Amino acid sequence: MIVQKYKDMLQGKSVIRQLSEFATQRGCEIGYENVFDYSLGNPSVPTPQKFTDTMIDMLQNKDPMELHGYSQSLGIPAVRDKVAQSLNARFGMNYTGNHIFMTTGAAGAIAHAVRCVSEPGDEILTFAPYFPEYGPYINLTGAVLKVVPADTKSFQINFEAFEEMLTEKVAAVLINTPNNPSGTVYSSETLRKLAAIMTDKAEKYGHDIFLISDEPYREIVFVDVESPYPSKFYANTLSCYSFSKSLSLPGERIGYVAVNPACRDAEYISAMCSQISRGTGHNCPPSIIQLAVAEVLDLTSDLSVYETNMNILYRELINLGFECVKPGGTFYIFPKALEEDAVAFCEKAKKYDLIVVPSDTFGVKGYIRLAYCINTEKVERSLEAFRKFVKNEY
Amino acid sequence: MIVQKYKDMLQGKSVIRQLSEFATQRGCEIGYENVFDYSLGNPSVPTPQKFTDTMIDMLQNKDPMELHGYSQSLGIPAVRDKVAQSLNARFGMNYTGNHIFMTTGAAGAIAHAVRCVSEPGDEILTFAPYFPEYGPYINLTGAVLKVVPADTKSFQINFEAFEEMLTEKVAAVLINTPNNPSGTVYSSETLRKLAAIMTDKAEKYGHDIFLISDEPYREIVFVDVESPYPSKFYANTLSCYSFSKSLSLPGERIGYVAVNPACRDAEYISAMCSQISRGTGHNCPPSIIQLAVAEVLDLTSDLSVYETNMNILYRELINLGFECVKPGGTFYIFPKALEEDAVAFCEKAKKYDLIVVPSDTFGVKGYIRLAYCINTEKVERSLEAFRKFVKNEY
Repeated sequence: MIVQKYKDMLQGKSVIRQLSEFATQRGCEIGYENVFDYSLGNPSVPTPQKFTDTMIDMLQNKDPMELHGYSQSLGIPAVRDKVAQSLNARFGMNYTGNHIFMTTGAAGAIAHAVRCVSEPGDEILTFAPYFPEYGPYINLTGAVLKVVPADTKSFQINFEAFEEMLTEKVAAVLINTPNNPSGTVYSSETLRKLAAIMTDKAEKYGHDIFLISDEPYREIVFVDVESPYPSKFYANTLSCYSFSKSLSLPGERIGYVAVNPACRDAEYISAMCSQISRGTGHNCPPSIIQLAVAEVLDLTSDLSVYETNMNILYRELINLGFECVKPGGTFYIFPKALEEDAVAFCEKAKKYDLIVVPSDTFGVKGYIRLAYCINTEKVERSLEAFRKFVKNEY
Repeated sequence: MIVQKYKDMLQGKSVIRQLSEFATQRGCEIGYENVFDYSLGNPSVPTPQKFTDTMIDMLQNKDPMELHGYSQSLGIPAVRDKVAQSLNARFGMNYTGNHIFMTTGAAGAIAHAVRCVSEPGDEILTFAPYFPEYGPYINLTGAVLKVVPADTKSFQINFEAFEEMLTEKVAAVLINTPNNPSGTVYSSETLRKLAAIMTDKAEKYGHDIFLISDEPYREIVFVDVESPYPSKFYANTLSCYSFSKSLSLPGERIGYVAVNPACRDAEYISAMCSQISRGTGHNCPPSIIQLAVAEVLDLTSDLSVYETNMNILYRELINLGFECVKPGGTFYIFPKALEEDAVAFCEKAKKYDLIVVPSDTFGVKGYIRLAYCINTEKVERSLEAFRKFVKNEY
């Protein structure tokens, strides 16, 4: 028989997806350029030309048998070496290629990292506000996601709640910095304190507690914001990365797990991921994309538009009386709604063709998320809609 | 703590991999052209030029945001439609795009199909000889793989053993035709009988029994061999496909699940696969590869070399006194070894720089597998080594 739990999952439709579909539909009526669609976190700048040129060059000049041949399930050795070298140069780490497991984006990285360090029934803690896909990502591995309530002052970590929830059942802690949806970047102080608590508790319980650090927005950090590398603070760290945002390649599904060389059993973990991949059907990311990305590891798309957009929106939101923590990175901003019920707030916003997402699915009530990965010109035009909305409704 | 069961899996090293590494090492000593390496099933002909040209054309002319953007987790709708149309035209089916779930190769297809139709603890039956990766592929989903003993006369199905093992615990039956390692193609008679037995038992037990049909070698079928489409014989069929062999793209990880429209709950199954993919971290295959493959669905690499090689090898093996079922497709041949212990036989063959794989890991004892996806010129040169080997050792 077909498995009921997966059939049941078809009932729930993502709020973000619904809003995005509304925006598309509204666009058919009034022209999509007139819909201020802040629903989806899709990169809005093209991949670097060098990525495209590298792909074309390989297709024109490489032996197709070699280019499209099987890669090892861990990833192509030369690619893994280059990823290690790039991380070492940037963050003062000492990875080798053996600490890198190439994946199909951050989703693939998390799927393997979680299975590596947790048995079914173990708890994984994450912090609100959080990316709602973490629910199925974690729970479908057999582990159980538990959400630590938010520190709404700064969207750093609510350490009191964290210490309470960090029981013996917890196998790993999942962080996301820079954070979707808040745009917050965890400070060194936050990461130091997080590491100290995890170290204490691991010792107390007599078992490892792993840090799974989801970093798809690592490269989108704004001027003067300190963005420390989480793995520097805690040895038992598996860093999960995706090139989706930094290289604007979300459809090409490429990323990695980087295992801190000082991690317990570091020498086994990436090899274990490749065993796990036999059950997930993952095997390896596409060869040609691995090879092309390896040539542009230290490049990014022109990400400056996101900071420009953030500054325009932040200033206007503050002017309009919103409470808002200024984002340190990503392409999200997460102001407090002007009424308690964020769902009602977002519903009213639609009347002004402002498509924003209520915070409820991110594990916090009363906030809204704007994904400002859109043209700056449109962001500027949206300000008048915000003004009208606030003036008329509040 | 890291999960012991995955660490334990690191102990076992694949026999095929060991032999392939031996061949590479021996190649360093005497020149790889002098090693008759029949170990690995890697395509030996390039992808069609049109695939390469399509990739280059898209990279040069398409908007990179669109080209590399997120695809739906089910796959790009236009690609799914084209796959459905191609299957309908070839096999007289009535798929729509909604019955197609794009995957990262056949491994990805099997990982999702199995999870769709089996709960942890359910049994999945397959038939010896079988692709050894089915063990971890199935068992790591939580289901339990059981292997029906081989019909060594024809490598069709041992129906007596099958009927005995098809108990109430069986959720699905996994077939592989054309078959790795035997090269056998299931006949219409075999598929009809298989379907009849499954239908009877499903009725008797009061629950569905699904057919998961793994078909990466579908396009490699030799002249005058009938190769029926399994899904035509049994409604509850999920066909798992990979373009790895037909288009020589094993590294690019592209394939699909095609759900028979007459299958129970057919309208839900591909959507369920996309729910499952949130837990496997699969999400979707790379966009650019999906789009390029959709343009060459009805092409293949020049696969004729495999039949040429098969005929040369088959004739010589028979001349040398081997018992051998003539392959109907694939790029494998599976003769009986000249002594009971196939491992010892393959060990002796190494002295003649003949690298062949003992059948033990395929679930049958006393046979050997030759993967003849190598140059015809090398196949011809290997005959003398076979003659010497047999003359001196047997």
